[in-house]
Amino acid sequence: MADDPLVRKHSGDYHWQGVDVLKYKQDGTAPFRDVTRQVLFDSADPPAQLRYFEVAPGGYTTLERHEHVHSVMVIRGHGQCLVGEKAFELGTNDLVSVPPMTWHQFRAAGDEPLGFLCLVASNRDRPQLPKAEEVDSITKPLKTGSPPTRG
Amino acid sequence: MADDPLVRKHSGDYHWQGVDVLKYKQDGTAPFRDVTRQVLFDSADPPAQLRYFEVAPGGYTTLERHEHVHSVMVIRGHGQCLVGEKAFELGTNDLVSVPPMTWHQFRAAGDEPLGFLCLVASNRDRPQLPKAEEVDSITKPLKTGSPPTRG
Repeated sequence: MADDPLVRKHSGDYHWQGVDVLKYKQDGTAPFRDVTRQVLFDSADPPAQLRYFEVAPGGYTTLERHEHVHSVMVIRGHGQCLVGEKAFELGTNDLVSVPPMTWHQFRAAGDEPLGFLCLVASNRDRPQLPKAEEVDSITKPLKTGSPPTRG
Repeated sequence: MADDPLVRKHSGDYHWQGVDVLKYKQDGTAPFRDVTRQVLFDSADPPAQLRYFEVAPGGYTTLERHEHVHSVMVIRGHGQCLVGEKAFELGTNDLVSVPPMTWHQFRAAGDEPLGFLCLVASNRDRPQLPKAEEVDSITKPLKTGSPPTRG
Protein backbone atom coordinates (compact mmCIF):
# COMPACT_ATOMS: atom_id res chain seq x y z
CA MET A 1 0.00 0.00 0.00
CA ALA A 2 3.02 2.26 -0.46
CA ASP A 3 1.54 4.13 -3.40
CA ASP A 4 -1.53 5.22 -1.42
CA PRO A 5 -3.78 6.28 -4.29
CA LEU A 6 -6.86 8.39 -3.76
CA VAL A 7 -9.22 5.66 -4.91
CA ARG A 8 -8.77 1.90 -4.72
CA LYS A 9 -11.35 0.16 -6.83
CA HIS A 10 -12.91 -3.04 -5.64
CA SER A 11 -11.71 -5.60 -8.15
CA GLY A 12 -14.38 -8.15 -7.28
CA ASP A 13 -14.81 -10.90 -4.70
CA TYR A 14 -13.60 -8.68 -1.85
CA HIS A 15 -10.23 -7.90 -3.29
CA TRP A 16 -8.99 -4.39 -3.95
CA GLN A 17 -6.49 -2.81 -6.32
CA GLY A 18 -3.11 -2.57 -4.61
CA VAL A 19 -4.25 -4.29 -1.40
CA ASP A 20 -2.37 -7.46 -0.56
CA VAL A 21 -4.14 -10.53 0.76
CA LEU A 22 -2.14 -11.40 3.86
CA LYS A 23 -1.92 -14.29 6.23
CA TYR A 24 -4.20 -13.75 9.20
CA LYS A 25 -1.36 -14.65 11.56
CA GLN A 26 1.92 -16.43 11.29
CA ASP A 27 1.34 -20.16 11.12
CA GLY A 28 1.72 -21.93 14.44
CA THR A 29 1.40 -18.81 16.59
CA ALA A 30 -2.25 -19.37 17.45
CA PRO A 31 -5.14 -21.67 16.54
CA PHE A 32 -7.36 -20.53 13.66
CA ARG A 33 -8.68 -21.90 10.39
CA ASP A 34 -8.95 -20.39 6.91
CA VAL A 35 -8.72 -16.67 7.61
CA THR A 36 -7.20 -13.95 5.41
CA ARG A 37 -6.41 -10.33 6.27
CA GLN A 38 -6.30 -7.20 4.12
CA VAL A 39 -5.39 -3.73 5.40
CA LEU A 40 -7.79 -1.31 3.70
CA PHE A 41 -6.68 1.85 5.51
CA ASP A 42 -3.64 2.53 7.67
CA SER A 43 -4.17 5.99 9.08
CA ALA A 44 -1.85 8.26 11.06
CA ASP A 45 -4.64 10.47 12.44
CA PRO A 46 -6.63 8.78 13.82
CA PRO A 47 -3.84 6.26 14.59
CA ALA A 48 -5.97 3.39 13.35
CA GLN A 49 -6.24 0.60 10.85
CA LEU A 50 -9.32 -0.64 9.06
CA ARG A 51 -8.79 -4.26 8.08
CA TYR A 52 -10.93 -6.72 6.13
CA PHE A 53 -10.89 -10.28 7.41
CA GLU A 54 -12.42 -13.13 5.56
CA VAL A 55 -13.15 -16.46 7.19
CA ALA A 56 -13.79 -19.30 4.73
CA PRO A 57 -16.88 -21.50 5.22
CA GLY A 58 -16.40 -23.51 8.40
CA GLY A 59 -13.37 -21.47 9.42
CA TYR A 60 -12.81 -19.45 12.58
CA THR A 61 -10.56 -16.78 14.01
CA THR A 62 -8.37 -17.27 17.05
CA LEU A 63 -10.08 -17.40 20.44
CA GLU A 64 -8.27 -14.57 22.21
CA ARG A 65 -8.49 -11.45 24.34
CA HIS A 66 -6.49 -8.22 24.68
CA GLU A 67 -6.71 -4.70 26.05
CA HIS A 68 -7.40 -3.07 22.70
CA VAL A 69 -10.95 -2.96 21.43
CA HIS A 70 -12.35 -4.16 18.12
CA SER A 71 -15.08 -2.35 16.22
CA VAL A 72 -16.41 -4.80 13.68
CA MET A 73 -18.86 -4.63 10.79
CA VAL A 74 -19.86 -7.71 8.83
CA ILE A 75 -19.94 -6.97 5.11
CA ARG A 76 -20.14 -10.49 3.68
CA GLY A 77 -21.97 -13.66 4.56
CA HIS A 78 -22.99 -14.83 7.96
CA GLY A 79 -21.79 -16.77 10.96
CA GLN A 80 -21.41 -16.48 14.70
CA CYS A 81 -19.31 -14.59 17.16
CA LEU A 82 -18.46 -15.12 20.77
CA VAL A 83 -18.04 -11.93 22.81
CA GLY A 84 -17.41 -12.57 26.47
CA GLU A 85 -20.07 -14.87 27.82
CA LYS A 86 -22.46 -14.61 24.89
CA ALA A 87 -22.66 -15.99 21.38
CA PHE A 88 -24.42 -14.04 18.64
CA GLU A 89 -25.69 -14.93 15.20
CA LEU A 90 -24.19 -12.52 12.68
CA GLY A 91 -25.41 -11.43 9.28
CA THR A 92 -24.31 -8.85 6.74
CA ASN A 93 -24.12 -5.27 8.07
CA ASP A 94 -24.28 -6.31 11.73
CA LEU A 95 -22.00 -4.40 14.11
CA VAL A 96 -19.92 -5.93 16.92
CA SER A 97 -17.99 -4.18 19.72
CA VAL A 98 -15.39 -6.26 21.52
CA PRO A 99 -14.52 -4.60 24.86
CA PRO A 100 -11.07 -4.79 26.50
CA MET A 101 -9.93 -8.17 27.84
CA THR A 102 -12.98 -9.97 26.52
CA TRP A 103 -12.67 -13.43 24.98
CA HIS A 104 -13.87 -13.39 21.39
CA GLN A 105 -13.98 -15.50 18.27
CA PHE A 106 -15.62 -15.21 14.85
CA ARG A 107 -16.84 -18.26 12.99
CA ALA A 108 -18.13 -18.50 9.43
CA ALA A 109 -21.21 -20.52 8.65
CA GLY A 110 -20.64 -23.70 6.69
CA ASP A 111 -22.14 -22.47 3.44
CA GLU A 112 -20.40 -19.16 2.73
CA PRO A 113 -17.50 -16.97 3.86
CA LEU A 114 -17.82 -14.52 6.72
CA GLY A 115 -16.19 -11.21 5.80
CA PHE A 116 -15.88 -8.32 8.21
CA LEU A 117 -14.23 -4.96 8.67
CA CYS A 118 -12.30 -4.49 11.91
CA LEU A 119 -11.22 -1.09 13.21
CA VAL A 120 -8.31 -1.10 15.68
CA ALA A 121 -5.75 1.27 17.13
CA SER A 122 -2.42 1.22 15.29
CA ASN A 123 -0.56 0.81 18.57
CA ARG A 124 -2.09 -2.14 20.38
CA ASP A 125 -1.21 -4.94 22.76
CA ARG A 126 -0.65 -8.53 21.73
CA PRO A 127 -3.52 -11.02 22.08
CA GLN A 128 -3.62 -13.47 24.95
CA LEU A 129 -4.64 -17.08 24.30
CA PRO A 130 -6.61 -19.25 26.71
CA LYS A 131 -5.05 -22.23 28.38
CA ALA A 132 -6.09 -25.48 26.72
CA GLU A 133 -8.21 -26.44 29.71
CA GLU A 134 -10.10 -23.13 29.59
CA VAL A 135 -11.29 -23.38 25.98
CA ASP A 136 -14.37 -25.54 26.55
CA SER A 137 -15.83 -23.32 29.22
CA ILE A 138 -15.07 -20.07 27.36
CA THR A 139 -16.67 -21.32 24.15
CA LYS A 140 -19.66 -22.96 25.80
CA PRO A 141 -22.09 -20.26 24.55
CA LEU A 142 -21.33 -21.14 20.93
CA LYS A 143 -23.82 -23.61 19.61
CA THR A 144 -21.62 -25.42 17.16
CA GLY A 145 -19.71 -27.38 19.74
CA SER A 146 -16.24 -26.99 21.16
CA PRO A 147 -13.75 -25.38 18.82
CA PRO A 148 -10.44 -27.02 18.17
CA THR A 149 -7.66 -25.88 20.41
CA ARG A 150 -5.23 -25.93 17.50
CA GLY A 151 -6.05 -24.77 13.99
CA MET B 1 -25.65 5.04 21.53
CA ALA B 2 -25.44 5.38 25.31
CA ASP B 3 -26.20 1.73 25.97
CA ASP B 4 -23.32 0.46 23.80
CA PRO B 5 -24.35 -3.16 23.36
CA LEU B 6 -21.93 -5.78 22.16
CA VAL B 7 -23.86 -6.44 18.97
CA ARG B 8 -26.07 -4.05 16.99
CA LYS B 9 -28.09 -5.96 14.45
CA HIS B 10 -28.70 -4.47 11.05
CA SER B 11 -32.45 -3.91 11.00
CA GLY B 12 -32.65 -3.61 7.22
CA ASP B 13 -32.19 -0.87 4.66
CA TYR B 14 -28.99 0.40 6.27
CA HIS B 15 -30.47 1.13 9.64
CA TRP B 16 -29.19 -0.41 12.86
CA GLN B 17 -30.67 -1.17 16.25
CA GLY B 18 -30.03 1.74 18.59
CA VAL B 19 -28.32 3.91 15.96
CA ASP B 20 -30.04 7.22 15.30
CA VAL B 21 -30.41 8.59 11.78
CA LEU B 22 -29.05 12.11 12.11
CA LYS B 23 -29.00 15.20 10.00
CA TYR B 24 -25.85 15.34 7.91
CA LYS B 25 -25.28 18.94 9.03
CA GLN B 26 -27.34 21.68 10.53
CA ASP B 27 -29.56 23.23 7.87
CA GLY B 28 -28.17 26.38 6.36
CA THR B 29 -24.57 25.84 7.49
CA ALA B 30 -23.37 24.47 4.15
CA PRO B 31 -24.73 23.42 0.76
CA PHE B 32 -25.70 19.76 0.40
CA ARG B 33 -28.69 17.73 -0.72
CA ASP B 34 -30.40 14.69 0.79
CA VAL B 35 -27.70 13.26 3.05
CA THR B 36 -28.14 11.40 6.35
CA ARG B 37 -25.53 10.46 8.94
CA GLN B 38 -25.33 7.56 11.39
CA VAL B 39 -22.52 7.04 13.91
CA LEU B 40 -21.79 3.31 13.91
CA PHE B 41 -18.79 3.39 16.26
CA ASP B 42 -17.48 6.14 18.52
CA SER B 43 -14.21 4.83 19.86
CA ALA B 44 -11.90 6.21 22.58
CA ASP B 45 -8.87 4.20 21.46
CA PRO B 46 -8.31 4.76 18.60
CA PRO B 47 -9.90 8.20 19.05
CA ALA B 48 -12.05 7.72 15.97
CA GLN B 49 -15.56 7.54 14.64
CA LEU B 50 -16.91 5.28 11.94
CA ARG B 51 -19.94 6.91 10.39
CA TYR B 52 -22.38 5.78 7.69
CA PHE B 53 -23.52 8.46 5.29
CA GLU B 54 -26.27 7.94 2.80
CA VAL B 55 -26.81 10.26 -0.13
CA ALA B 56 -30.22 9.90 -1.78
CA PRO B 57 -30.41 9.52 -5.58
CA GLY B 58 -29.30 12.78 -7.13
CA GLY B 59 -28.03 14.12 -3.81
CA TYR B 60 -24.55 15.29 -2.88
CA THR B 61 -22.41 16.09 0.13
CA THR B 62 -20.91 19.49 0.82
CA LEU B 63 -17.99 20.57 -1.33
CA GLU B 64 -15.38 21.22 1.37
CA ARG B 65 -11.84 20.71 2.61
CA HIS B 66 -10.17 20.39 6.01
CA GLU B 67 -6.96 19.24 7.67
CA HIS B 68 -8.38 15.93 8.88
CA VAL B 69 -8.42 13.00 6.50
CA HIS B 70 -11.32 10.81 5.45
CA SER B 71 -11.03 7.08 4.89
CA VAL B 72 -14.13 6.05 2.96
CA MET B 73 -15.62 2.75 1.84
CA VAL B 74 -18.71 2.60 -0.34
CA ILE B 75 -21.11 -0.07 0.89
CA ARG B 76 -24.25 0.79 -1.07
CA GLY B 77 -25.00 1.92 -4.58
CA HIS B 78 -22.84 4.00 -6.84
CA GLY B 79 -22.00 7.54 -7.78
CA GLN B 80 -19.05 9.86 -8.13
CA CYS B 81 -16.56 11.60 -5.94
CA LEU B 82 -14.33 14.57 -6.42
CA VAL B 83 -10.96 14.36 -4.64
CA GLY B 84 -8.69 17.27 -5.35
CA GLU B 85 -8.38 17.72 -9.09
CA LYS B 86 -9.88 14.39 -10.10
CA ALA B 87 -13.34 12.90 -10.31
CA PHE B 88 -13.84 9.16 -9.86
CA GLU B 89 -16.70 6.81 -10.58
CA LEU B 90 -17.57 4.91 -7.42
CA GLY B 91 -19.22 1.55 -6.92
CA THR B 92 -19.89 -0.69 -3.96
CA ASN B 93 -16.79 -1.68 -1.95
CA ASP B 94 -14.58 0.98 -3.53
CA LEU B 95 -12.18 2.77 -1.16
CA VAL B 96 -11.45 6.51 -1.12
CA SER B 97 -8.74 8.41 0.77
CA VAL B 98 -9.23 12.16 1.11
CA PRO B 99 -5.91 13.81 2.02
CA PRO B 100 -5.60 16.95 4.17
CA MET B 101 -6.86 20.23 2.69
CA THR B 102 -8.19 18.57 -0.44
CA TRP B 103 -11.50 19.66 -1.93
CA HIS B 104 -13.93 16.75 -2.01
CA GLN B 105 -17.55 15.94 -2.67
CA PHE B 106 -19.59 12.74 -2.97
CA ARG B 107 -22.54 12.50 -5.33
CA ALA B 108 -25.10 9.72 -5.66
CA ALA B 109 -26.16 8.48 -9.06
CA GLY B 110 -29.68 9.31 -10.10
CA ASP B 111 -31.06 5.82 -9.77
CA GLU B 112 -30.05 4.68 -6.28
CA PRO B 113 -28.61 5.93 -3.01
CA LEU B 114 -24.87 6.15 -2.41
CA GLY B 115 -24.01 4.82 1.04
CA PHE B 116 -20.52 4.92 2.47
CA LEU B 117 -18.57 4.39 5.66
CA CYS B 118 -16.28 7.25 6.69
CA LEU B 119 -13.54 6.89 9.28
CA VAL B 120 -12.36 10.12 10.94
CA ALA B 121 -10.48 11.26 14.01
CA SER B 122 -12.73 12.14 16.94
CA ASN B 123 -10.91 15.45 17.38
CA ARG B 124 -10.90 17.21 14.02
CA ASP B 125 -10.97 20.64 12.47
CA ARG B 126 -14.02 22.25 10.96
CA PRO B 127 -14.53 22.08 7.19
CA GLN B 128 -13.77 25.06 4.97
CA LEU B 129 -16.17 25.96 2.16
CA PRO B 130 -15.13 27.38 -1.21
CA LYS B 131 -16.01 30.90 -2.19
CA ALA B 132 -18.95 31.00 -4.59
CA GLU B 133 -16.73 32.06 -7.46
CA GLU B 134 -14.37 29.10 -6.86
CA VAL B 135 -17.00 26.36 -7.12
CA ASP B 136 -17.10 26.01 -10.90
CA SER B 137 -13.38 25.56 -11.29
CA ILE B 138 -13.05 23.18 -8.32
CA THR B 139 -15.85 20.95 -9.57
CA LYS B 140 -14.85 21.04 -13.21
CA PRO B 141 -13.60 17.40 -13.17
CA LEU B 142 -17.08 16.14 -12.29
CA LYS B 143 -18.97 15.14 -15.40
CA THR B 144 -22.43 15.97 -14.24
CA GLY B 145 -22.07 19.71 -14.53
CA SER B 146 -21.63 22.39 -11.96
CA PRO B 147 -23.08 21.62 -8.56
CA PRO B 148 -25.39 24.07 -6.91
CA THR B 149 -23.69 26.47 -4.56
CA ARG B 150 -26.54 26.19 -2.08
CA GLY B 151 -28.31 22.96 -1.17
